[in-house]
Parts: sequence; C-alpha cells; structure tokens
Amino acid sequence: MQVGMIGLGRMGGNMARRLMRKGHSCVVYDRSPEAVAPLVAEGTEGAATVAEFVTRLGTPRVVCLMVPAAFVDSSLDELEPLLVEGDTVIDGGNSHYQDDLTRAARLGRRGIHYVDMGTSGGVWGLDRGYCLMIGGEKAVVERLEPLFAALAPGRGDIPPTPGRDSAGGTSECGWLHCGPTGAGHFVKMVHNGIEYGLMAAYAEGFNILKNANAGRAGFEKDAETTPLRNPAQYQYDLDLAAIAELWRRGSVVTSWLLDLTAQALVRDPALETFEGRVSDSGEGRWTVAAANDLGVPANVLAAALFGRFASRGHELFQNKIQSAMRFGFGGHLEKK
Amino acid sequence: MQVGMIGLGRMGGNMARRLMRKGHSCVVYDRSPEAVAPLVAEGTEGAATVAEFVTRLGTPRVVCLMVPAAFVDSSLDELEPLLVEGDTVIDGGNSHYQDDLTRAARLGRRGIHYVDMGTSGGVWGLDRGYCLMIGGEKAVVERLEPLFAALAPGRGDIPPTPGRDSAGGTSECGWLHCGPTGAGHFVKMVHNGIEYGLMAAYAEGFNILKNANAGRAGFEKDAETTPLRNPAQYQYDLDLAAIAELWRRGSVVTSWLLDLTAQALVRDPALETFEGRVSDSGEGRWTVAAANDLGVPANVLAAALFGRFASRGHELFQNKIQSAMRFGFGGHLEKK
Amino acid sequence: MQVGMIGLGRMGGNMARRLMRKGHSCVVYDRSPEAVAPLVAEGTEGAATVAEFVTRLGTPRVVCLMVPAAFVDSSLDELEPLLVEGDTVIDGGNSHYQDDLTRAARLGRRGIHYVDMGTSGGVWGLDRGYCLMIGGEKAVVERLEPLFAALAPGRGDIPPTPGRDSAGGTSECGWLHCGPTGAGHFVKMVHNGIEYGLMAAYAEGFNILKNANAGRAGFEKDAETTPLRNPAQYQYDLDLAAIAELWRRGSVVTSWLLDLTAQALVRDPALETFEGRVSDSGEGRWTVAAANDLGVPANVLAAALFGRFASRGHELFQNKIQSAMRFGFGGHLEKK
Amino acid sequence: MQVGMIGLGRMGGNMARRLMRKGHSCVVYDRSPEAVAPLVAEGTEGAATVAEFVTRLGTPRVVCLMVPAAFVDSSLDELEPLLVEGDTVIDGGNSHYQDDLTRAARLGRRGIHYVDMGTSGGVWGLDRGYCLMIGGEKAVVERLEPLFAALAPGRGDIPPTPGRDSAGGTSECGWLHCGPTGAGHFVKMVHNGIEYGLMAAYAEGFNILKNANAGRAGFEKDAETTPLRNPAQYQYDLDLAAIAELWRRGSVVTSWLLDLTAQALVRDPALETFEGRVSDSGEGRWTVAAANDLGVPANVLAAALFGRFASRGHELFQNKIQSAMRFGFGGHLEKK
Repeated sequence: MQVGMIGLGRMGGNMARRLMRKGHSCVVYDRSPEAVAPLVAEGTEGAATVAEFVTRLGTPRVVCLMVPAAFVDSSLDELEPLLVEGDTVIDGGNSHYQDDLTRAARLGRRGIHYVDMGTSGGVWGLDRGYCLMIGGEKAVVERLEPLFAALAPGRGDIPPTPGRDSAGGTSECGWLHCGPTGAGHFVKMVHNGIEYGLMAAYAEGFNILKNANAGRAGFEKDAETTPLRNPAQYQYDLDLAAIAELWRRGSVVTSWLLDLTAQALVRDPALETFEGRVSDSGEGRWTVAAANDLGVPANVLAAALFGRFASRGHELFQNKIQSAMRFGFGGHLEKK
Repeated sequence: MQVGMIGLGRMGGNMARRLMRKGHSCVVYDRSPEAVAPLVAEGTEGAATVAEFVTRLGTPRVVCLMVPAAFVDSSLDELEPLLVEGDTVIDGGNSHYQDDLTRAARLGRRGIHYVDMGTSGGVWGLDRGYCLMIGGEKAVVERLEPLFAALAPGRGDIPPTPGRDSAGGTSECGWLHCGPTGAGHFVKMVHNGIEYGLMAAYAEGFNILKNANAGRAGFEKDAETTPLRNPAQYQYDLDLAAIAELWRRGSVVTSWLLDLTAQALVRDPALETFEGRVSDSGEGRWTVAAANDLGVPANVLAAALFGRFASRGHELFQNKIQSAMRFGFGGHLEKK
Repeated sequence: MQVGMIGLGRMGGNMARRLMRKGHSCVVYDRSPEAVAPLVAEGTEGAATVAEFVTRLGTPRVVCLMVPAAFVDSSLDELEPLLVEGDTVIDGGNSHYQDDLTRAARLGRRGIHYVDMGTSGGVWGLDRGYCLMIGGEKAVVERLEPLFAALAPGRGDIPPTPGRDSAGGTSECGWLHCGPTGAGHFVKMVHNGIEYGLMAAYAEGFNILKNANAGRAGFEKDAETTPLRNPAQYQYDLDLAAIAELWRRGSVVTSWLLDLTAQALVRDPALETFEGRVSDSGEGRWTVAAANDLGVPANVLAAALFGRFASRGHELFQNKIQSAMRFGFGGHLEKK
Repeated sequence: MQVGMIGLGRMGGNMARRLMRKGHSCVVYDRSPEAVAPLVAEGTEGAATVAEFVTRLGTPRVVCLMVPAAFVDSSLDELEPLLVEGDTVIDGGNSHYQDDLTRAARLGRRGIHYVDMGTSGGVWGLDRGYCLMIGGEKAVVERLEPLFAALAPGRGDIPPTPGRDSAGGTSECGWLHCGPTGAGHFVKMVHNGIEYGLMAAYAEGFNILKNANAGRAGFEKDAETTPLRNPAQYQYDLDLAAIAELWRRGSVVTSWLLDLTAQALVRDPALETFEGRVSDSGEGRWTVAAANDLGVPANVLAAALFGRFASRGHELFQNKIQSAMRFGFGGHLEKK
C-alpha cells in the first residue's frame, strides 16, 4: 500500500521506515529538506513541496500527518485544496480529540476522510512497533488495516491475555479501532494522562530512596526549620541504579518506564544532565480536563500534571503569597 | 499571678507584655540578654541565668517555655533540676504532642506538672490576644485559669455562636482545656495543618487570577509546548490587591488570612520582596502524619504541605527522573 | 433606581428585598408564581409573565437575572426580543465567564448592554450584604453604581486595610468593577474555587480531630489490615464544637466559614442530618480548568473539587480496578 | 541448603515450593495444621509446633518468617528462646523497616542474626520468581546467597539494561543486598508506595475511559448540578478490555500491572465482582510517612494512598462538614 507521510521528526521518519520495511511504499515530505534527504537516501520517495507530495500519491490518497499539534491546522490548510473526494488524511500526532471532530467535519464536506490515530512508542517504535489507537469511519479504518498492522508491534513474544481466545480483534496486535472520529485521540489522551501518573509515581519513589540517608546531614535548629525527628531511621545510602534493575525482575512494578529509568540511571546515576524542567505536550492537561468535565476524581493524574507545571516555575507566585501571609501573621522571614 | 517566661522571641516577649498589662507579674529569661533588656525596661523582672530565673519565682512556680521546638528538651534539661514538686511547666511553643507525653512522664516522676499549650496569634497576639489550646491535668489547668484568661482574646466583639447559650465553657473566651496531656498540642497541630491548607487555597487562587491575562502572551509552537487553546478567554488584567480587599466584605471567603493577604498586596503588589521559599515549622507534617496513621484522607492538607517542600527545591530529583524518562522514550530534550 | 429581578430563589428574592430597603424600586418575576407572591406582599411590584415584567420597567431598563446557570440562555431567549437598545441585562448568577463573552456579543448586536456580576453572600446577604464582582463596559457599570452600592455590604465595621488610604476605589465597600465582560464571573469563579479549598481544609482537619480517639478501638490483625502502630498516641476524645468556637477567637484560622462550622456543630455535633454528598455548582471545576489551561498548579483546589466528586460515588470504578489488580497479583479479596 | 519457613499463606507456601524445586530442603510450620498438610504431601518436612520446627533444623539455622506484619513480634517471642547464637531469622513479610532495627537489636543481643527481606511477586512468584530486597549484615547475606538466588527470578528472558555490563551485581538476577538492617524493607516499602501510585494512575485513566459516553445521559438542570458543558464531546462507548490489551503492546504504559488489568477486564468487564473497597497493607502509609519526615513532596503517592482510605468510607465526616457549611451559607440541601 502507498502512504504519504508529512512530518519527518522523531516519529514520522521512523514510521515511514517501518512501513517500508514491511513492504509498503512511502512518499515523504517535511518543511525542512534536511529531514527529507536521509529518507530518500534510504530509498523512500521524497517531495520538495506539498504540491509535489500530493502529485506523487496515487488516488485514493492516504496521507499521514506527523506534525506537532500546533501545526495540524496550517498543514491541513495547505493540503486540503490539493486533495479530492475519497482521499484520506490520518492525523497521527498528539492532537486534541475535540479538534478531530472539527477537522473531520471540515474535510468531510469535500468527501475527504479523516482518521485520528493516537500513536505511542516514541523513538523505539521503529523496532518495537507503534501502539495505535484509532478513531474514524469503520469502512475507512478497515481499508487501512495493512498500514496499521505494519506500524503496530504485532503479537510478538507477548503472551495473549488468558481468556481472550474468543475475544479476537486486533488489540492483541497492538492496534485498535476504538470508535468514531476522535475516539483514537481520546484513548491516546488518557493513555498519556496515565503515563504522566506512572512517571510521577516512580519519580517520587526514587526521590524518597535518594533521600534515605538524610539522617546523616546536620539540621539547623531554629523556629523556621522542622528537624528530622528520627535521624537514626534515615541512614541508608541506596544504589538507585541497582534498585531500578532489581525491580525489573519479578516485582509488581515492572514496566517499560522502569526499564527506561534503569537505563537512565546507568548512564548518569545522579541525572546531572537534566535540570528537572518537565514539559507537558497537552494530553495530560486534556485528560485532567476530561475528568473535570465528567465529574470523576483524578487526584493522581492531576498531581502528576501539576508537578510538571511546578517544575517549570509556574507555582512561584503562590509560594510568594504564602510567604507574605507567614510574614503577616508571624513576622516569619524566608529562609535562604 | 506570677509567671516565669523563658524565650522572648516573637511570641514569648509579647505574651509577657500581655500578661503584665492584665495585672500579672512576670519574670523573664532568654539565652540572649538583648532580648531580656527591653522587657526589663518596660518593668518586667529579668533574669541573667536560668538559676536566677528560678530563684525569683515564688513556689509553686509556673514556668512558661516559649522556645523553638528543637530547644525544649535542652531547656528542660537545664530547668528541671532546679524545680520542685508542685511546680508547673507550660510548653507554649510548637512542640509535637507526642513529645508532650514523654515530657509529662519525665517531669511527673518528680511531681512536677506539665501543661501543653498550643498558641496561635503570631505577632498580633499582644493586642488581639492568643488563642490557646491546652492539654494536661484538669486541676492544674483550672489553677492556671487566670493566666489563660489574660493571654486569650476574651469574648471581645465577636458575637457568640447562636445556640451556644447553654454550652458555656471557656472556648468563647479563646482558650480551652482540650483534654489530657498532649491534647493541646494535638489540636494546635491540626489547627496549623488547616492553616497550611487555607493558605495554599488562597495562594493558588491568586496565582490563577494573576495569570488571567496569559492569552496576551505569545506561545512557541513546537512539540514540547502545549499552546493555550483559547487565548481569547484569558485577557484579564486583574487588580489583585483590590480583589483581596473586595473579598473581605460580604463574601464567603472572608478570613483573617485574607485580611493579611490584602495587607501584603497593598504593600507590595507583585510580592517582589519574597522569593517564594515557604518554610514549614512541623505541625503541617505532623497533621499529615496523623491522618496517615489514622487512615483518614487528607488530600488538601498534604498538597498544601508538599507544595511547601517543593517551594524549597526538594522535588528536583523527581523532576529529573521524569525528564530522563521522557528523553528515554521520546528523545525529548528539556526546554530551557 | 428601578431594577427588574428575574429569579426569586434563595438569592434573587433577598437581593430584591435589600434593594428596596435601600430605597430602590423593584419589579420581580419568577416562573413560579408562589415565589412572586411574598415579594408582592412586602410591597414589591410583581409580574405574572416576562412580557408584563418588561412592560413594567421604565427604559432604559435594568434587568438582573438570578437563575441557575443552566437556565440563563433560555431566560435570555425569552427576554431579549422584548428589550430595546440601551437596556441592560445583569447576570448575577453562577454563569461560566466564557458564556458571558458569547452572551454579551449576542445582546450587543442589538445594542443591549450585558454586565456579569459574580455574587457571594448566600442566604446571609440580605442583612450582611453581597460581595459583588463585576465585569462589563465601564460606562454601564458606572451608571449602575447605586444598585451595586445598595447590594454590597459597604464599609461597615470592617477596618480598612492599612496602607490603602490612597488606593481608593469601591472594593472597600464590597463591590468592584473587575474588568471587561467576563471579568466579574472570572473573579467569582476563582473565589468559589478558593472557597472549595478552604472548606476542604477545615473538613479534613475536623475529620482528623474526630478520629483522635482511634487508639481506643481494637484492630483486626490480618494481612489486609494495617494496624495503628501507636494506639497510645490516639486517645483523645475532643469536643469539636468547642474547638470550632475556640478557633473563632484570636487564631490564625478565623474565618466566616469557621463561624458557620461552629454553628453547624452546635446544632448537630455529629452532623447526623447530613449524608456527606457534596454538590459542586460549577465554579470549582471551571477554576481547575483555568489552572489547567494556564499551566499553573492547583493541587489544593483540585483535591478539594475531586473530593466532592468522590463524595458522590464517582470514584467507584477506579476503586474496583484497584481491587481487581490486587486480586490479580496477590489473591487479595476485598474486606467487607 | 536447608531453610525453615514459618507462615504458609499465599506467599510462604509457594516460596517453600520454589525452594524445593530449586533443590533446597525446607521445614515448614504454620499455626494452622491445614496449611502444613499440603506442603508435607508435596514432600516438604512439616512441623506441628514451633519447638518441633526448630528441632528439625540443623544449626546454624535459617528461619524465614512469612507472617502478617502484626504477628512478627509474637512469632519472635515464641521462636527466639529456641534459637542459638549463629542462627539467622529472615523476615520476608511486610514489616516496617523501623521494626527491623528494633528486632535486629533484640536478636543481636543473643548473637542471632536478622535479615529483612522485602518480597514482591505475589501469587505469581512460584513460577515467575520473587523480587527480593534485602537488608542486613554483609557476611550473613552472602552466606544465604543460594536461597536468594533460588527464590529470585534470575536473568530469565529479560534483556539486561544496556550499559550495565560492567556494573555486575545480583540485581540483574532479581535480588539485591540493599544495605544494613532495614534497608531491604525500606526499599520494599517504597516499591509498594510506587505500586499504589501506578495502580491509581491506571485506575483513574480507566475510569475516565468508562465515562467517555457521559454525554449521552441526560442531566438535571438545577442550582445544585453542574451540567456537562459539551455533551457532544463525550459520546464514546469504549471497550476497556480491548484497550487494556492494546496498550500491552508497544505503548509507553506497558507493565505487569497493566497485564493484570487486562486479565481482570477479560474475566469481568464491568468488575461486578468487586465493591471497590481497597485495602492498604501498610507500606503505602509508611512511604508517605517517610516522604513527610524527609520533607520531599509525594503528591501522587499520597493521593493514591488517600484514595484507598476514602474507598473504605473514611472521608465521610469531612464530606458532612462540607455539606454543613454549604447549608450554612447557602441553604443548600444535599442532593440524594
């Protein structure tokens, strides 16, 4: 099957490579020609402009967008006039599922199909495959099955869940038609919301382990400092990298995120290459917004998200307000 | 009634003054002679050593400790040998109620009474009076009533709660015998836990108000940044000081902490004199520890407390862990 | 000044009364004639239909809507065709500020002014006055000043914040023009978000106090139950009503919400008349949504909100998921 | 090597079986003879009393306790007098690491060694192996290496973390000497704290997915109910079991806990066999207590823990307090 790929960043480039490895043909385009060149060198068909890109695709066309969420609409502005009835656009980036509804309606007015495809897998997807959460019209999704099957990990060596024998379906191969337009990005949104929570859980745990020797430090004694009540209980110098490796085997907390943590701690045990500013690319916020809309509690997911906000300094003014109150009632000056 | 006061910091000095204004006599001592001098100048009896301090008090002695929690035990080490059966030590500082149990047992072995007195009121207590939460033996507390009544605010112009007519008791005067040893500091502990929660609630709210004009700022478009979806909805330049003043009248959120916030925002609207490092003096932690022991949820109080920890940088390593994971699965580099 | 009031529930009826007490004249309307009758008996002009209501108002009309947020649009549908250029509609209910933007645009197309007025004060406002947070065109708000001044508490006996002498403005009287359309409801939204946080902080604290005697209860010993490690530390039977009363005087946590808590605990010390299902009327969610949009952490406000969701059972499925996992890895059966 | 096992519940019984499979010999004891019988039938040596149990072990003895945390001290009371210098007691249960310090000191006075062994793996450990986190004297731990190696999963088919080649150590085999006494249970404590966070993250996410069709339900319109602002955005009927299966392949959130979730959702898609009362067996509390002591934020771990407390109804009184306040200021009655 032929597929056009727009956006050759960390995700799109490798997705094109994986499709080609699996016997599909790709036409690729990126605003930056430097991103196109290596793919062409590997045998992919490249395009210098969106117009050329579209021309190189046979109808009905299948175009996959892998661009940052903020560029999807401008990409569609450029692309849509060049497409015709029966063509399909797949948005495989991190778009908000609510935007899918608008975009599908926009393209639908001209008979162009729209498929939202939440994609997980990161830079490892080339070899490991991409987990695909798909929304859109049933018939369109079915027609694209060969692409999804090629991008997805497949059954591989992960044993099927006991009792699923009769369930069938494609989820065991790592891709799923989740529902109508937006359903794919909705599920991907929650997937990333969960991801934030998992990451923060490990992060908080390792931070506690790292501080397990705090009883060895001296503490100032003044009215502004809470002394550690039981320093004798915090005398452990723990090897975080070894503990991460340990938990990878047989423990309840084994996971791919833990594997990655173990790798990071081997490379750089004190994580000195990082400053601790944790970006959020949208889905965590949207997940919390959905919980908020729906009236379901999401204490853990919200705490994980807000921790990222705070990591970037956005809680500063609220801390100043609190220091100002403390000064107001108690004359407390901030400790340096 | 005569009372000895040890510790003439922000709290102890003014408490001695208030006692004298109300007709009691005080003997005062502080490790630092500079703290004693002004009190003596105002007519208080001062002492240069603990031994002299004890000598100047008539038996049975009443000694009130107003020292940082970390110095209570060392103060008792010095004081206890000089006291005799029938004397009373009041710990009016921010001690952990569990330490009260140990200390009362220690002094009790020599027939010395121990009273724990949680004290709220801060630097305003001299004029406003101190809210006192008291634990200890009933007979001892009753004997000290004149002191508590003098330190406490009294009924003042705060109307009694409707329906309390028959309840009686001293709580309407701003002091209360809460229960046996430790009950005073237990109630004070929870008081401060609540205080942390209240402060954080205001602080978060004002931070949102301050950011209500974020729609005017430009946003970078890249895969690491979540754009503000609806900038048109965040176009408000709000006058925080005026809003704090406004809410002081007739709103549901009126409180003394709001009064203090209004004062701070008048003095320094951007709170530039603060860096946002919020200390915690122990009770917030102990409140969360109690909730934890008791198996009752305390999401708000814990979040308020943890926000203080983070304001001092103690979440750094967990943020680095998360950045390391993001780099691991997605090749994401931290934004500067 | 003459004002028309639509919606005579807990808020609107008393606001009409307060306006009349202060010398204004009111025309009132409610879908339910039973709500109109008592106001008419007190001397207000009543109307049986919206059409009659509009006819009774002199132009330019001032109409204040005090209806549940879900009914504002339908009220406007009925009202708008009857109004003319120069008339003003005030929405004094709990509308989302984003709806203000839409509604102001809608009315503005016909030259009708729209003012959003966040109103705090509850059932006490009749006597205590209403704290008013106002958004809209400057000239329109200025023209309505007599109404706002009448509804608001005024300076009363609340001392002005030191240092505000030069600041001037109306906030000291309990009403404020916060900014353009939506600014009033934006500030009211955050006000209520804070309110949720404050309420939860007190609630968690009192719950801990209530459980301070847990050490007296026996604990089962099995692999599913965490024993209380130190029962001797939780032996206090505390008088919650007395403590609430106590804290009203001289403590850092004095507030109107505490006054109300003290009242509730006097009436019904175990709060047996309540089942613990805590509604949320929208603003808490919108506050958390704003924080989420803006990328500022709001751990306390979100925790307070989510606690309300959970109080209504909306966390049930997530608990079942966790029980299912526990059964999966450990064979743990739920305790009854 | 010979090892004695006391406590043949879900963990101890299978651990004895795994040791035997790997060529070690076991003597087993349980308060309940019914727990001993099946092990004896499988060829293990059983004992009817603790005295008999001790007699059957050759010196220096190795005794592994696998009893609920609440029974460790009483087990030691019975066991210790029967042991002699040079014997070793391993506590493989879920003890608090602070108790390890006390117990090691107690046994150490008689020359008996104490090893704390945090054990993860649940009912799956028999086949999958147990992840072991070990604290104690270096020489003692080294001597017991054959036991740890047999219980642990070993390298298996989990690829080593890239870059660990030179690190060596036993963590790649699933067991680790973490440090001196208590270090094993400390690491296990944090492991379980993380586990709580991970579980809650998945649980909240699946709850949001389950509610993704809420836009189809009708909403009451009244002043107590927040309407869903955009019902059109919540129209998805999602297949949770298929999504769990999907995420097991290639996604960022793959983990063993997700595998278990997928299994549970296949068996019982609505989880009707559970009521949602989530127990906590201690380590989650202790983890939060450690974070609290150390002054490091743990918003996610605390929220996960507190969610368990609330699942058992322990937040009831705080909800009542909030309802009482709402009634106080707004006359709001609880919705049924």
